[in-house]
Amino acid sequence: MAAPRVVIIGAGFGGLECARKLAGRPVAVLLIDRNNYHLFTPLLYQVASSLLNPSDIARPVRSIFSHARNVAFRQAEVVGIDFKSCTVATANGDAVPYDTLVIAAGSTTNYFGIEAAERQALGLKDLSEALELRNHILRCLETASTTDAEGSRPWLTFVVVGGGPTGVEYAGALSELMRLVLPHEYPELAGRPTRIILVEGLAEVLPPFPPELGALAHRELQRKGIEVRTGVRVAAVEGDTVVLSGGDRLEAKTLVWAAGVKPAALASAIHVPRARGGRLQVDAQLRCTGLDNVYAIGDIASFTQDGHEVPMLSAPAMQEGRLVAANILHSVRGEPLDTFRYRDKGSMATVGKGVAVARLGPLNLSGFVGWLAWLTVHLYYIIGFRNRLAVLMGWAWNYVRSDRPVRIIARARQRDAPPPSDGGSSLSLRDNLVD
Amino acid sequence: MAAPRVVIIGAGFGGLECARKLAGRPVAVLLIDRNNYHLFTPLLYQVASSLLNPSDIARPVRSIFSHARNVAFRQAEVVGIDFKSCTVATANGDAVPYDTLVIAAGSTTNYFGIEAAERQALGLKDLSEALELRNHILRCLETASTTDAEGSRPWLTFVVVGGGPTGVEYAGALSELMRLVLPHEYPELAGRPTRIILVEGLAEVLPPFPPELGALAHRELQRKGIEVRTGVRVAAVEGDTVVLSGGDRLEAKTLVWAAGVKPAALASAIHVPRARGGRLQVDAQLRCTGLDNVYAIGDIASFTQDGHEVPMLSAPAMQEGRLVAANILHSVRGEPLDTFRYRDKGSMATVGKGVAVARLGPLNLSGFVGWLAWLTVHLYYIIGFRNRLAVLMGWAWNYVRSDRPVRIIARARQRDAPPPSDGGSSLSLRDNLVD
Repeated sequence: MAAPRVVIIGAGFGGLECARKLAGRPVAVLLIDRNNYHLFTPLLYQVASSLLNPSDIARPVRSIFSHARNVAFRQAEVVGIDFKSCTVATANGDAVPYDTLVIAAGSTTNYFGIEAAERQALGLKDLSEALELRNHILRCLETASTTDAEGSRPWLTFVVVGGGPTGVEYAGALSELMRLVLPHEYPELAGRPTRIILVEGLAEVLPPFPPELGALAHRELQRKGIEVRTGVRVAAVEGDTVVLSGGDRLEAKTLVWAAGVKPAALASAIHVPRARGGRLQVDAQLRCTGLDNVYAIGDIASFTQDGHEVPMLSAPAMQEGRLVAANILHSVRGEPLDTFRYRDKGSMATVGKGVAVARLGPLNLSGFVGWLAWLTVHLYYIIGFRNRLAVLMGWAWNYVRSDRPVRIIARARQRDAPPPSDGGSSLSLRDNLVD
Repeated sequence: MAAPRVVIIGAGFGGLECARKLAGRPVAVLLIDRNNYHLFTPLLYQVASSLLNPSDIARPVRSIFSHARNVAFRQAEVVGIDFKSCTVATANGDAVPYDTLVIAAGSTTNYFGIEAAERQALGLKDLSEALELRNHILRCLETASTTDAEGSRPWLTFVVVGGGPTGVEYAGALSELMRLVLPHEYPELAGRPTRIILVEGLAEVLPPFPPELGALAHRELQRKGIEVRTGVRVAAVEGDTVVLSGGDRLEAKTLVWAAGVKPAALASAIHVPRARGGRLQVDAQLRCTGLDNVYAIGDIASFTQDGHEVPMLSAPAMQEGRLVAANILHSVRGEPLDTFRYRDKGSMATVGKGVAVARLGPLNLSGFVGWLAWLTVHLYYIIGFRNRLAVLMGWAWNYVRSDRPVRIIARARQRDAPPPSDGGSSLSLRDNLVD
């Protein structure tokens, strides 16, 4: 009998972990992702702030599984699933058959219905957005340096929405980029203040952390000159102006949206029961409700434990991936399935060079010790020796030289677009933002 | 009296060298480039073949001159020059005044009037083209792996036009990428041949080299399985089909154009005498004909020595940049100007890992010794310790692990374009190529 065909949608933390645990086992795995790489998203903000190269945190999926003969890869966008015929539909019209399916399609940025934000804000959720954000920030500095003091103000005002780890870490990294690079390399901007404003709707930043760590991060951000606005939401986006719920209006050419995520579009394209936030309901064994051969894991799945939904983070996704791999093998052997239980080992966030907050089990760490813990854990979880080495070298360079080396405005040429002038194309992008 | 204002158009090898020699001298230099970085073009083919990161060979201009208080930078596209009012016109409408001007705008790909090639071929002249070429090649492999043997043939056929160093080096690097990566990571393609065809119009590849080195490179390319077609030109491009001058028709989804360069568009937008190929005529002191305060250097300038135009290469550009810097300082001091003489120190090209041909003065080197010479010279000329280190590490990784690590299909998100799916956008690009 042929090995059961397991299709995994998504090579993020959950899908990848599941595939890794199935490597070398008696199943035929096909891993599908719209990108050809696994992305280490916790360090995405360091690509967006010119510290790391894209390839440092993105590893080709085929390279990860080059020694696993039973794991195949296909680059495709999944647009639907037919649970009756047991096939997955891709954007280019293929129907991929499965015996067992693992839905690990992840999440996407949540603009909470603010259409102008969706159109104009810069996200920080995938590599293409991080690269665009990096390019955009550098373009703002170039534009400001040829504009008079008054006119340059919106180019030097950066609004970051969302006080979770992504927003806090990016705001911190951005303030470092400004502090390290501007005085030496942009003499035209001497004496002109840059403003970084971090907007968080709840009462304190880093809401999932213990309040004392949130308060500590808050003070550290302020010490770096970042304006932290808690208890405030974005009410509207009007052209270049961000309107806050209190009525304040911020004129800024940069609006970074790190306010939250929602399940990937695939969740609403298929017909299975969903939880309130739109995530797919799963049972104790992580199967989609009513479907014996379909599992859902990670951000797209809603698993409730002790009355709470497990959060949309990499750690539960990986634990779920491991459990589903085990359950698939149990099924093959005709054994009963395991039930899932999330073990929260903690969470952490850097606020800048040498400063981080971390909750590790019962332990709250902060400052330099927290930072070392942060470094160690992140290095440990990056997949592949070369990526680990590249990231470590990037950090060492940053630590010793206080430099943000990847400050290039570069994009792949779009072949049906205007000629390959990065300088030129930046103009039209600016205009988009202005409009 | 204020320091004379020197404007340099272009931060390539010529313009950058000129600016470096003027750093710390009694002139106010403004260096203008459409990109915010200096690009080490000799290694561009290694970015296009997934070996190096873009930032390894691109260094921000502002970073190079962070310690030179008299050198400023502006990112802008220069579209014209008014020699009467002594101003440079940029694409966004600025008029930048100069006392002395150095035109170092470089060159662009020459499609020799074949419009279909200009529309469809992939260039290898700047970073955006190299990134697009890298993405394209990886997409071809992904597409081929989901297509049947017959249908995948055009996706696995790669035509490289131009047997100069760029074409030879890229063809060699591409064959290595295929040899190293395909067997391990694309089991779907097992048993399917990949074809790389190098097309050169002259009788032998590497025409500027001594014939025995060209013949040696030719054999080495063939040993790597590359089909070398000399004495043949591209007659037409019809859809996916490249028609050669002999009548042969090659069906290929990839057409890389490295057939030659022509002076940048700026050369024909200004009113100064030009030589036959369109390059700007310069006198013995490298001034544009009839203009005392305007110099032209590098690919855009035509300097004739011993009856021959100096070639469009980095070495003469750098030598010209140095001479013009000296002449500008002579002018400031009221001294007579120096005249230019090009010293040809040699040229070199790699054909693959461990094999290169090099002409160094009277010496012809090849094989491993040539390769070591190639490595040393290229490392020496890369600007900046970090870039040197990054390139060296990339090479060491490649040498030891036989890996091409930067195999990610990634582009900055275009904000008015469709959603940020790299997989999705590849489809439309493929369709463009098909059409």
